[in-house]
Amino acid sequence: MADQDWKTLCAQRKQQQLDAIPPQWTIAPPPDSQRNVLNVPRTCGLLSPLELEITETADVDVLLQKLRTGAWSSVQATTAFYKRAIIAQQLTNCLTEIFIERALARARELDEHLARTGTPVGPLHGLPISLKDQFCIKGMETIMGYAGWIGRRAETDSVLVELLHECGAVPFVRTNVPQTLIWGETYNHVFGRTTNPYNRYMTPGGSSGGEGALVALRGSPLGVGTDIGGSVRIPAAFCGLYSLRPSYERLPYCRAVNAQEGQESISSSLGPMANSAAGVRAFTKAIVDAKPWRKDPLAVRKEWSAREYALEEHGGGARMCFAVMWDNDVVKPHPPVLRALEITKSALEAAGHIVIDWKTHRHLEIYKNTESIFAADEGHDYRTDCALSGEPLIQTMSPDTDAHEYALDAPFAKVIVGTPRHLSAWELWQLHREKRALRKAHLDHWEATASRTGTGRPVDAIISPVAPYAACPHGCNSDAFYTTLFNALDYACAGFPVTLADAARDRPAPPHAFRNSEDEAVYRLYDPELWHGMPVGLQLVGRTQEEEGVIGMLEVVDAALKKYKDTQ
Amino acid sequence: MADQDWKTLCAQRKQQQLDAIPPQWTIAPPPDSQRNVLNVPRTCGLLSPLELEITETADVDVLLQKLRTGAWSSVQATTAFYKRAIIAQQLTNCLTEIFIERALARARELDEHLARTGTPVGPLHGLPISLKDQFCIKGMETIMGYAGWIGRRAETDSVLVELLHECGAVPFVRTNVPQTLIWGETYNHVFGRTTNPYNRYMTPGGSSGGEGALVALRGSPLGVGTDIGGSVRIPAAFCGLYSLRPSYERLPYCRAVNAQEGQESISSSLGPMANSAAGVRAFTKAIVDAKPWRKDPLAVRKEWSAREYALEEHGGGARMCFAVMWDNDVVKPHPPVLRALEITKSALEAAGHIVIDWKTHRHLEIYKNTESIFAADEGHDYRTDCALSGEPLIQTMSPDTDAHEYALDAPFAKVIVGTPRHLSAWELWQLHREKRALRKAHLDHWEATASRTGTGRPVDAIISPVAPYAACPHGCNSDAFYTTLFNALDYACAGFPVTLADAARDRPAPPHAFRNSEDEAVYRLYDPELWHGMPVGLQLVGRTQEEEGVIGMLEVVDAALKKYKDTQ
Repeated sequence: MADQDWKTLCAQRKQQQLDAIPPQWTIAPPPDSQRNVLNVPRTCGLLSPLELEITETADVDVLLQKLRTGAWSSVQATTAFYKRAIIAQQLTNCLTEIFIERALARARELDEHLARTGTPVGPLHGLPISLKDQFCIKGMETIMGYAGWIGRRAETDSVLVELLHECGAVPFVRTNVPQTLIWGETYNHVFGRTTNPYNRYMTPGGSSGGEGALVALRGSPLGVGTDIGGSVRIPAAFCGLYSLRPSYERLPYCRAVNAQEGQESISSSLGPMANSAAGVRAFTKAIVDAKPWRKDPLAVRKEWSAREYALEEHGGGARMCFAVMWDNDVVKPHPPVLRALEITKSALEAAGHIVIDWKTHRHLEIYKNTESIFAADEGHDYRTDCALSGEPLIQTMSPDTDAHEYALDAPFAKVIVGTPRHLSAWELWQLHREKRALRKAHLDHWEATASRTGTGRPVDAIISPVAPYAACPHGCNSDAFYTTLFNALDYACAGFPVTLADAARDRPAPPHAFRNSEDEAVYRLYDPELWHGMPVGLQLVGRTQEEEGVIGMLEVVDAALKKYKDTQ
Repeated sequence: MADQDWKTLCAQRKQQQLDAIPPQWTIAPPPDSQRNVLNVPRTCGLLSPLELEITETADVDVLLQKLRTGAWSSVQATTAFYKRAIIAQQLTNCLTEIFIERALARARELDEHLARTGTPVGPLHGLPISLKDQFCIKGMETIMGYAGWIGRRAETDSVLVELLHECGAVPFVRTNVPQTLIWGETYNHVFGRTTNPYNRYMTPGGSSGGEGALVALRGSPLGVGTDIGGSVRIPAAFCGLYSLRPSYERLPYCRAVNAQEGQESISSSLGPMANSAAGVRAFTKAIVDAKPWRKDPLAVRKEWSAREYALEEHGGGARMCFAVMWDNDVVKPHPPVLRALEITKSALEAAGHIVIDWKTHRHLEIYKNTESIFAADEGHDYRTDCALSGEPLIQTMSPDTDAHEYALDAPFAKVIVGTPRHLSAWELWQLHREKRALRKAHLDHWEATASRTGTGRPVDAIISPVAPYAACPHGCNSDAFYTTLFNALDYACAGFPVTLADAARDRPAPPHAFRNSEDEAVYRLYDPELWHGMPVGLQLVGRTQEEEGVIGMLEVVDAALKKYKDTQ
């Protein structure tokens, strides 16, 4: 294909998307210079008071209760969230597929079912749910940021979508991703760049950045992203949301599309993003209760454990020991992130828990092993999908007009791998051997903390940054090791918001002894005025396949933070 | 190393093994011409009446009860089984590591603990357990059939051994394997060939063939093998035993050695082999209850499910529907195997269950995908380990003096892969994509059987041959697809004995339309007189990570068979 062809193709497809927006749902856009657009949905006049009430109900349990009892119909909720999603699209360019009629038809069916039978269809009855641009819906395109995938229509629903239907949910919109999915930002040639509603100069993170921006603007009560190196937790943290990265295959990925399809060394997982911990729990429990192993051959056959959720393995949740990872010894976090860790420590101590320091263990070896696995095909997968249309492989997330000067030429993730080379199957197996040995060593390291927790148990959970910074300028999110570490170890992780960056409190620290060029670049990047007002999120890290316990602990931490903030 | 070196090394190591046998435990060996040696332990005079009683207690629950209550001491049991294992060694060459003093010291500790505290150490208190030559024991060699591994001493116990210690068991002997582990027979240059105690002209199967011969001779009450393509189920069937191939990572493989270490596309699992279904259950439940995920980062975090074991998902076990796979459409089973299927069908129907025919689904595609994965490194792993000593890679399991003429030049497993080539990482990923699609298709195929079972559920379990033949002459076990199919699909499988081949009843069938050269060769191999008296086993196949349900159904099938045989 000639160079022009893929550009034309992308432009046509983007126009199709614009045409899908009902004219009556367009708003007078704020000027480009208006960075924070969080308040626009409230002030633009498109939403009725009821629609505002519906969409600003952060607690998914409350939404579900209203829908289950018919207090709000699914058509009302779907319309309200759809209008707000379309506003979000006009503000941050967070959407890909828009299918209003199809979603409303589904909502009507659910309303009719409830009216006719008096019983909801399932635990997510009537709830609109947004999906990252990987979760195929029968008959619709799933473009996933590749020009060459335009026009590919799914023959079947992905298993997640099938289960959401069984649960009574309304998949209602799909959201933007970066080309290749392997960026912590969100830009591709087809749908363009997604921005952060807290500050459009900043990235919402990625690769589930469309979800991040959409859910932060309350354009969706619950979004589903995927995470192979932080792609759920990073946008959730950058956009002030709650999230879950479940262990490999706990939730069904089957028949979703993916990058590096077939790479099974470190698997991507799908997880929820929401404005409440309740949303994370409601989604995860509903999907596990739907027995995904009936439809996904890789899904873990483990029922929802009420015992684990009640924290029976964590002393009933009464007096737990958390360990704070202040620094991963590769890139030092910015002041707002360190303050978020301090707040969380104080809140947990105020709630009667023990907080100790986490000791890092063989991070550089894990980092190198992980990045070597991701690079094992030397980019052959990405190049193949770009070659379908002739579009170039995107080399930077930095827009010309943005903070280009901050972008690193060589992120440490590439430095640590060294010269890339397409590995042989046997060489990949040697990386697996090393990976297993590192996971074993890290597990033993965790178990050995029992001697210093004071609870008789090992550390109940790690509290860690999600990134060394809050949401950063476009093109600058070079470091994902705070999250990738736990994908490599396959520990279940939950993300939660803590505070907002504050120029007055979060003064720059003096320079430290830099460990590498990225550590130095990240240090120099920090600007208290630029970051002011950006949300700061952290992650709670539990054990492999311990999703129930991690969600239970997330609720404990969230309650402790809320109570602590009330007292400050 | 010069050619002589590895031979010398092997001969010295073999002599060391012979030297480990106490002179007072040697027996007057039966003549080589005596094929069936099952009765020798009873008649050789080495075992006391009590030792015979202990070692012939097939029901592991009874053994455990005697040990727990102190009716039999662990030293008594360990001595009895050790003596019998040494007899088995002299008859079938089934052992590798012999460590009598170490095992007896452990047994004494356990006896003292019970005497002192009145409570057993764990659920397997006092029980001697034999281990395939992969499960490292601190300070001991694990040679795994490679001359080049002689002298390698383990720095730590494998996780399985750690858990066995926690459970109160006595690991007491290790057992023979084939070089590379990828044969369904048992021969290597260090320890030589293991034979089948039912007929030493026949193979006990492999790769856990040492366990098969040992447990069949009651030289161990419970053995642990590993299975990546049938290596637990084949020797169990060839030696008349019960067995379990659990799903990937349900039981802890961590720090056991393996061939193709790091190959994670289709994982080997470890599983028990015993003379009773009770042994299979006792081992599996004890290890799962010991929470292997505390020590093995890959182990599935799923507690033992009493609900699944009670067959709650199978109508409480009252009226189930089993589907018989009479033929895998690649190699047609011999008459004794078909008769075993008939017996099982009749027994299940007599017990009130429904039995229908299983329809095969995309077997050739699964076969090709699986064998292509096993061959992805073009043998680089095997060659590397042989090169350590200079020993040659073994090309056939056929001994010069044995039934060489039956051996196939090109088993279908090699034919279907085509010309082998060392694949790239990306090419391996494409095999994974195909594998996932095939697993999804097969799962849907199984779910769709709900329309024809009459129970409202899909087929509860498949009843399938383990091999197209009962134990065959050395060098002739060319076909493993009856088992490998289910490794590829990761379905939990239990093996069980059904009957003995009978020259009068199992007359050769007329030739059928052969599907391939192996199908024809296997057909021509059958000789009713040669096979007379060999045990015939089958497998019960359930769902992924449904070990509890599979063991529950195994007990149902076993009870039905016993009752049915009583009425014939």
